[in-house]
This record gives sequence, C-alpha cells and structure tokens, in this order.
Amino acid sequence: MEPLILNGSKVATDVKEQLKIRVEALKEQGVTPCLATVLVGDDPSSATYVKMKGNACAKIGMESRKIHLPSETTTEELLDVLDELNDDATVHGILLQHPVPSQIDERAAFERISIEKDVDGVTSHGFGQNALGFGEFPSCTPAAIMEIIDYYNVDPQGKHAVVVGRSPILGKPVSMMLLNRNATVTTCHSYTENLPALVADADIVVAAVGKPNFIQGDWLKEGAIVLDAGYNPGNVGDIDYESCYAKASAITPVPGGVGPVTISMLLKQTVDAAEKYGKTNS
Amino acid sequence: MEPLILNGSKVATDVKEQLKIRVEALKEQGVTPCLATVLVGDDPSSATYVKMKGNACAKIGMESRKIHLPSETTTEELLDVLDELNDDATVHGILLQHPVPSQIDERAAFERISIEKDVDGVTSHGFGQNALGFGEFPSCTPAAIMEIIDYYNVDPQGKHAVVVGRSPILGKPVSMMLLNRNATVTTCHSYTENLPALVADADIVVAAVGKPNFIQGDWLKEGAIVLDAGYNPGNVGDIDYESCYAKASAITPVPGGVGPVTISMLLKQTVDAAEKYGKTNS
Repeated sequence: MEPLILNGSKVATDVKEQLKIRVEALKEQGVTPCLATVLVGDDPSSATYVKMKGNACAKIGMESRKIHLPSETTTEELLDVLDELNDDATVHGILLQHPVPSQIDERAAFERISIEKDVDGVTSHGFGQNALGFGEFPSCTPAAIMEIIDYYNVDPQGKHAVVVGRSPILGKPVSMMLLNRNATVTTCHSYTENLPALVADADIVVAAVGKPNFIQGDWLKEGAIVLDAGYNPGNVGDIDYESCYAKASAITPVPGGVGPVTISMLLKQTVDAAEKYGKTNS
Repeated sequence: MEPLILNGSKVATDVKEQLKIRVEALKEQGVTPCLATVLVGDDPSSATYVKMKGNACAKIGMESRKIHLPSETTTEELLDVLDELNDDATVHGILLQHPVPSQIDERAAFERISIEKDVDGVTSHGFGQNALGFGEFPSCTPAAIMEIIDYYNVDPQGKHAVVVGRSPILGKPVSMMLLNRNATVTTCHSYTENLPALVADADIVVAAVGKPNFIQGDWLKEGAIVLDAGYNPGNVGDIDYESCYAKASAITPVPGGVGPVTISMLLKQTVDAAEKYGKTNS
C-alpha cells in the first residue's frame, strides 16, 4: 500500500490563512506584528533564507525588519544590536540567521535574545521551558514536525520515536516534544552503535542529521511514519525517499514537507508574541 | 561473576572531603557558603530531608539557613520569600523542598529562583542550559548519577542508556546529560509499550520511576550497568535488587547508592555558587 504523503505545503497554506486573519485583527488594534531578521555576513544561502522569511511575512500582512551586519561584526557588536531589538516595542520577534561567522560566539548571541521575542526558539531558557512542557516558542523545525503530525492526526502516544540527530534546535527539542506527547523516545547521533537496528524498532522516525539520503528504507519497520527534517543541497532530505516510501505508512517529502511548515511556525510564533506582548497605539 | 557495587557512600565521602578544603579557602576570603532551605508545611519526611541537608552543610563547614513556612502559605507569599533570598548576598544557594502544599503553584516557585542560586537545578532555564551542554547547576540526582559513573570510570559514550522515568528533575535531565556524554538515550515512562524489551537492549539502565522493585533482573541484558535513582518507603529502590544483581556488571545499592551522592552534589553546587558569585567581606 502506498504511504500517506504528509504534505507540508498544504499544512503551511492552512496555517498562513489563519494567520492572515489574526494579523488583520492585530492591525485593527494598532499592532502590526514585526519580525526582525539579523543576518551577519554575505553567505548567499543565508541571505536567501532571510529574504524568504521577509517575503513570507509580507504575504500575510506582517512587517519584517532586515538588519544586515558586515561579516567582520564582533560578538559585542551583535549583542548590542540584539539589545536594541529586545528594547524596541515595535519588534515582536527576533530571528538571528545562523550559522554566524566564526569569530562570533553564536551561543552568547542566541542567549541574548529576550525570551518574549525568541520566536525561533534558540535560547536555552526557551528550550528548557518547552522541554518541561510549558514553553511558548519552541524551535521552529520541531514545532513544524508536531504541526504536521497533528494536522494528519498522527498521535505519538505510546509509539516508539527514534530521532536521528541531537542538535540544540532540532534533535534535542523534537525529542523532548515527542516525549511530552507520550512517545517513548530514542535519540541517536554520530556515536550511536548499530543505528539501523534502532531505527528498525521505530514507529516514528525523525531524520535530523544533515546527511543526504542517509536513512535507508531497508532499516525501517514496515509501516513506520517517516519525518524528514533534513534539507541538503540539491533539494534532498536526510532520508532515502524512494526506499523509505516503499516501507512507510506515512512520509514527508522533500521539498514540500517540513520546510514550508517551519517558516509558517516562525510567522505563527511572531504573531503569538505580538498578541501576547504587543503594545497597542491607543 | 559478581557485579561491581557502585558505592555511593564512598563517592559522597570523597566529594565532601574535597569540599571541606574549598569551604575553608572561601572562609579565609570572607565568604561562608550558605544554603537556604525553604520548607512549606509539616510533612514529616520533607522535614527530615531538610534537616539532613542542614546537617550535611554543617559537617563540611558551610552555613545553612532554614526557612519554615506554614502549610497555608500562598504562592505569592512563597514568591516573596524566594525574592528576598535571591536578593540576599549572604545566601549562595536556594533549595525549595518539594512537593509543596497543593495550593501553591510549584512550577512558579521553582521558576522564581535566581539561576545563580538554583543549586538544586529546578528552573527551566537551568534545565535548558544543562541540556544544551553548558549549564552550571544540573538537578542534583542526575548530577549524582554522572558523578558515580565518572568515579567508577563508566564511560557512557556509544552505549545505549535506557532511562525509565521522565520527571523534570530526574528522567529528563539525566537523559540529556547522558546524551551529552555521547550515549544513545531512550526515555521511557508510563505510556511506554513493552518496557522489558526496551530495557533488554540497554547497556545502562537508569531507574527513576518511583515504583519499588519495579525493574526486574530478567529484563536486563547480561552485564548491564544498573543505576537506581529510586528511593521508596522501606529503603527500597526502583530496581529489584537481588534479581538485577545477578545479571548486572555494575549496580548501585539502595541505600548507599545515588542518595548520598545527591546530597553531596547539592553541597558541591552551593560551594560552586559561592566561589563564582559570593561577595567577600574585604
């Protein structure tokens, strides 16, 4: 039987339609939700991502403010910019595009973002709140994964989820979010021994490893749900799509899977922040 | 072959001997490390725990300050007390004994503790920092588990650790700490299906479930390392000791395993806080 295609583009479209209505209502109250994007340096793909995010804001009626800093920016200079954005009542969310150039202490920069504006879910405080089950703004890719499974009524409760990857913005938070939804969660990484055998036990596989076509279909249990958070050069995910398609009961494509929903989660969380913390002009 | 007994009392004694030297040095600089313990209500076992912690402070030359609030204390009243302790430069660590009475919002109280004084590792911010690998004060029981395995040169790297339990101060943080030490980590809980089969794959089992004699020896892989963070009425852990002893290569006893090290971690983290943030009289 062919697997259910978990169509992220469709999920994202629905999310954005709802956001348009909320943005309109906010504007009537004198609050225009605004995402500040901070780009350091001239990496072309980072610039493209920032541009995509700005365009996505515009399409739903939000504002965005693009801060572009030179590649030789110091940590202190970046922290000053973040402080200004933290203090600016017209900015509701802050996105620091990463990776930043190597002379910058990226973690220090992430940590400087005020938790009320951490709509990209990069601070340790935001991570901790979400891991313990009461946070406002999770990291956007894990939030997208949860949005997709909810949209398609995939309930993780009691299922064994195997997460391949343990990054601070993806593997770790998605492990915690699945755990909070009552999945049994195994988190794997480069030191994991016999990964295929672990994946073979998974009801849900989350690929978040950053290696093209890494997860093989013959590792999967028949009927596994396969969620691909990878996005590698050439529009290729972390799963080997054809072989996984043959075994899965549900699967996210790349492109058109987790990616578009990730951007819509960034917008959603900025609108959430504007609703919660935005100051009206009245 | 008989398993190695992971003797927590011995670990705790060694830790406390080192702490005495550090406390002495701090006092010479005019800083006496001080742990404030906050007890709300009259639960006898909570009162006993608080007393034990105070005594442990005294034995290594530290001060402790015992704040005992009536059982009808409100959340706001407790938050006020915590604010005072946060602002008091002579207090270096704050321990809120829990559980607190049910009218109190325990999470709000935990969150109110300043991260510089959160030596019991209960705040979401402290949890997040540690989970991402750079925190100062992890929750004490997980810290004790890591201290024991380090003392006995058990390296979790590449091993499959199965954690049974997912509480904010035990199952979740120990899962993250083992993950940061390059174990592959599976976190299990009440919704986990077929727990024995998952435990059977574990090189390291952490029992943190709060059910006496729950983990059975016949679930274990031959030679597993068994760490029992449970402490149930009657001096009984979460593992069935006799049957697990027969299968394990290393095992923590109850009592004399994780428990005594937990208290010494609380002391250690208070001394750490005094060294880092303590103000000298000079």
